[in-house]
Amino acid sequence: MIHRKILPGLALLLLSSAAVAETDVTTLVTEGTDTVPACATCHGETGLGSADMSAPMIAGMDAGFLAGALHGFADGTRYGDTMSSIAPELSADEITALAAFFAGQKAEKQDWPAPETPGDAVAGEALFHGGDWSREIPSCASCHGQNGEGVGAVFPRIAGQETAYVTLRLEQLAEPEQPSADPDKALMAAVAGKLTPEERANVVAYLVTLDPNAGPVTGYVPADLVWAMPEMKSGALKDEINWDAAQTAYEKQQKRLANPAVYTHTPPSLDKIPEGPEGDLIRFGRDIFINTQKLRGTYVGNDMSCTNCHLDAGAKATAAPIWATPVDFPQYRSKNLHVNTVYERLAGCFTYSMDGTPPAPNSKVMVALESYMKWLGTGIPSDAIVEPRGYIYLPVPEEKPDYTRGATVYAERCATCHGTDGLGRKEGDHVIFPPLWGPKSFNWGAGMHDLEKAAGFIKHNMPLGNADLSDAEAWDVALYIDSQQRPQDPRWLGSVEDTRRFFQRGSNTYGLTSPSGEVMGDIGAPLAKPAPIPASESAAPKPTDLAKAQMAKGSSN
Amino acid sequence: MIHRKILPGLALLLLSSAAVAETDVTTLVTEGTDTVPACATCHGETGLGSADMSAPMIAGMDAGFLAGALHGFADGTRYGDTMSSIAPELSADEITALAAFFAGQKAEKQDWPAPETPGDAVAGEALFHGGDWSREIPSCASCHGQNGEGVGAVFPRIAGQETAYVTLRLEQLAEPEQPSADPDKALMAAVAGKLTPEERANVVAYLVTLDPNAGPVTGYVPADLVWAMPEMKSGALKDEINWDAAQTAYEKQQKRLANPAVYTHTPPSLDKIPEGPEGDLIRFGRDIFINTQKLRGTYVGNDMSCTNCHLDAGAKATAAPIWATPVDFPQYRSKNLHVNTVYERLAGCFTYSMDGTPPAPNSKVMVALESYMKWLGTGIPSDAIVEPRGYIYLPVPEEKPDYTRGATVYAERCATCHGTDGLGRKEGDHVIFPPLWGPKSFNWGAGMHDLEKAAGFIKHNMPLGNADLSDAEAWDVALYIDSQQRPQDPRWLGSVEDTRRFFQRGSNTYGLTSPSGEVMGDIGAPLAKPAPIPASESAAPKPTDLAKAQMAKGSSN
Repeated sequence: MIHRKILPGLALLLLSSAAVAETDVTTLVTEGTDTVPACATCHGETGLGSADMSAPMIAGMDAGFLAGALHGFADGTRYGDTMSSIAPELSADEITALAAFFAGQKAEKQDWPAPETPGDAVAGEALFHGGDWSREIPSCASCHGQNGEGVGAVFPRIAGQETAYVTLRLEQLAEPEQPSADPDKALMAAVAGKLTPEERANVVAYLVTLDPNAGPVTGYVPADLVWAMPEMKSGALKDEINWDAAQTAYEKQQKRLANPAVYTHTPPSLDKIPEGPEGDLIRFGRDIFINTQKLRGTYVGNDMSCTNCHLDAGAKATAAPIWATPVDFPQYRSKNLHVNTVYERLAGCFTYSMDGTPPAPNSKVMVALESYMKWLGTGIPSDAIVEPRGYIYLPVPEEKPDYTRGATVYAERCATCHGTDGLGRKEGDHVIFPPLWGPKSFNWGAGMHDLEKAAGFIKHNMPLGNADLSDAEAWDVALYIDSQQRPQDPRWLGSVEDTRRFFQRGSNTYGLTSPSGEVMGDIGAPLAKPAPIPASESAAPKPTDLAKAQMAKGSSN
Repeated sequence: MIHRKILPGLALLLLSSAAVAETDVTTLVTEGTDTVPACATCHGETGLGSADMSAPMIAGMDAGFLAGALHGFADGTRYGDTMSSIAPELSADEITALAAFFAGQKAEKQDWPAPETPGDAVAGEALFHGGDWSREIPSCASCHGQNGEGVGAVFPRIAGQETAYVTLRLEQLAEPEQPSADPDKALMAAVAGKLTPEERANVVAYLVTLDPNAGPVTGYVPADLVWAMPEMKSGALKDEINWDAAQTAYEKQQKRLANPAVYTHTPPSLDKIPEGPEGDLIRFGRDIFINTQKLRGTYVGNDMSCTNCHLDAGAKATAAPIWATPVDFPQYRSKNLHVNTVYERLAGCFTYSMDGTPPAPNSKVMVALESYMKWLGTGIPSDAIVEPRGYIYLPVPEEKPDYTRGATVYAERCATCHGTDGLGRKEGDHVIFPPLWGPKSFNWGAGMHDLEKAAGFIKHNMPLGNADLSDAEAWDVALYIDSQQRPQDPRWLGSVEDTRRFFQRGSNTYGLTSPSGEVMGDIGAPLAKPAPIPASESAAPKPTDLAKAQMAKGSSN
């Protein structure tokens, strides 16, 4: 076996000594000798092969491979009806010279006749490039090259090869008379042996379509690393609320809710949070979810907590439950025109609803929140259509929602807790009831600025513990609340009019004049947010710090 | 109803005018008048209440609330056996003055007798702080304050209240003779009405334990934002391979595999990748997974691709299939001593296996990889115990693995593709066979440096298509391959000896002298990695850019 391993090097060595004169090679190829018929008889003068003779195209193949094949025919480790009788007549020098000669010829794509058993080239292509790992069949390309061009002295070119020959060769490998002692041939025999005769025919049908001169794939096209930014047409500037958007959202949701495959989830009870570091982080995540003000000045810029909108710490079905998020994401969002991870979705909450700055992706806070959300969704299949999600929308009433009626509903049913001024209630720095508008409420980019979201939330959840408002009252008071000033949207485009153009895709009052006489959003550019915590403090510790932590006790114990 | 709304303000106004002289208030409290019995008879001179009289503690309660209650008794909107006959005899000025007097007294925690129907204070505490959202019952704390201290004129203090009184009051609210026209009372009636008599008793049992003087919670303890860094003892510096670690890993895995609840996954076929932006990203993720060299010079620093170790583009069960990752994470990893998200796990692949720099968390590449992994796991329940995962380990043989025997296995079975020098094979800049060591292979931090991982991978997958090595051969060749130099671990601690201390927790050769005479890892500090792509280019587009993209076509169409 060892002699074969060193053959390529040996071949080069012999070539350089020019042990066989060029004229002798020409004679062997074109005329032959007493004991050796001319190679050209079957393979053609330049080694293009012949369908009539079932002779493979050897032009341009690797010299080491060709020499190895001839040696194999010569010493009996390889068999071919014709070659097994010819090769023993060749000297080692002649083998080397012939291999070099044909390696130096140029292959040409031939119009080989269809094989006796025609195969499916498309199925063959799939096997060629993908293999079938369920049966431990690697792709042909993984050893013979992406273009079937052959790799080195061991893996021959198979692109554009004569069909009858390849068919026979695959059959020989698949059904050998005895196992090969050569591990490389044993490998190919193992692969070929797993292919059905039909699959072998499919591969043959594909190989014949490949250009034997394509050579190896070189060079990768670097990946396009930048998110595509689709151009979206925007309508003319409208001076009224886009109620159609709200109605569309309702209808879409109704359709989803009517899906018989909908998965209804019940989150696990709190005592099921596991012990250990994962459980600790889940508990920390839940704590942050409820007591989000613990992040005030670091990541949170207003007086809100997650649980203000996601009631019951995100576990209330009618108040944007958070258990489906790890199942649903990564998900495309029209809000930012690309596929978002759970992290980016959560980062959005900090940017908009908390009017703050998102924690770093590997930070304790962010991983804790993700862990808690994931735990709440324990048991949901990853392809489940989980409903309800978000808020449960209401149809837009025929008589459109009204600001003045909303003001009355607000005074009677909301002001007790949230204040007549909408600013909520604090004791010292402790928020008791969250503000619904004003400088310490969610900003214009938060989901709650969408009228259908606000109305749906209010209808099913407010007043807390006695959600008895009619649909019309919920719409009216949603309009009233969302017709008040709040912090600027971080997507601010420099003017209310321009920013309105962006907003008017949805159902909201941004850029419109409220009955109170104010232009919604006309409060200037966004104020500075809390400075982000340096990544070194908030994200995961550096690898070297971790390594050091593991050795903190020194080496003596 | 409106008069009640403005009462707090009105009360203050009247107080300031001192309409009732102090002596008159004292008389009312301690002696009473012809028509009004002394308040002190039931409530005590400072309003501490009385269990014998079932009189609530009113000392220190909100003046607006107390005045509102008296007005309610006076006008018949509230009923109390005693107060309903007394209050109508009080003038508005007297009500205001009495409310102010008792609001000014100091509450004291009393040792109230147990109520007739004893409740479970622990169950009551759960209701008080958590409510029961499955029945739309908010927590008591959400309106009455975290300490039950009462909030403003509408939500009375309930902490430390006399039990018989609270029991009666909850019963009145839960089973009213007629619905209250006051929405705040209707709200409390709605909540109380959902509580069973047993639950009401539980809440009463908890309330009596609370200190009526605790006052509101003020101030949040800011969250600890920094990952805990546990101190881990490290052993003495050992000069041999930690085979125990490999055996332990094997035994742990066997235990997991024997779990009858193990979930066996079959990934969906490629034609099931959806159309649209999410499907496009899944396809892009799969492309990056296979053709990872497209990221060379941006995020990838060596000649490896994901699919080199995660065969079949991460879908081969015996080669670290990636479908379980989105299910398993967030997950604690001893590798970095904290809970990791899918993102951080993937970032680790770039840092170690690709010897590069991780893409930003919201970058197209990262989200694409996460999307592809998630899609491969379609249908896995989020709490599934998915096996196999990682590599399938082998027991450590009694006759320990041997470098020299490994070298022979390598020469005969691996060198054809990976090269006698282990550097793999390239055509131009295109990698055909990946390097197993040397400067363009995975670095010392990659999982494959662990001997049990390398042996498990080799045993079940190599040579590609004919994985027929014996366990001993797989161990030997794994040891041989992992006893070669490769890029430094980014966790490098400045010396091989110190870094070895970190490594010796696992089964590897780092810091040991290989039979070739080289100290493994003794190649100096890590080389510079490709500079990270600026976040602005690689992560998600900025909100304002997105808004602008949506308006790119102008406003005219």
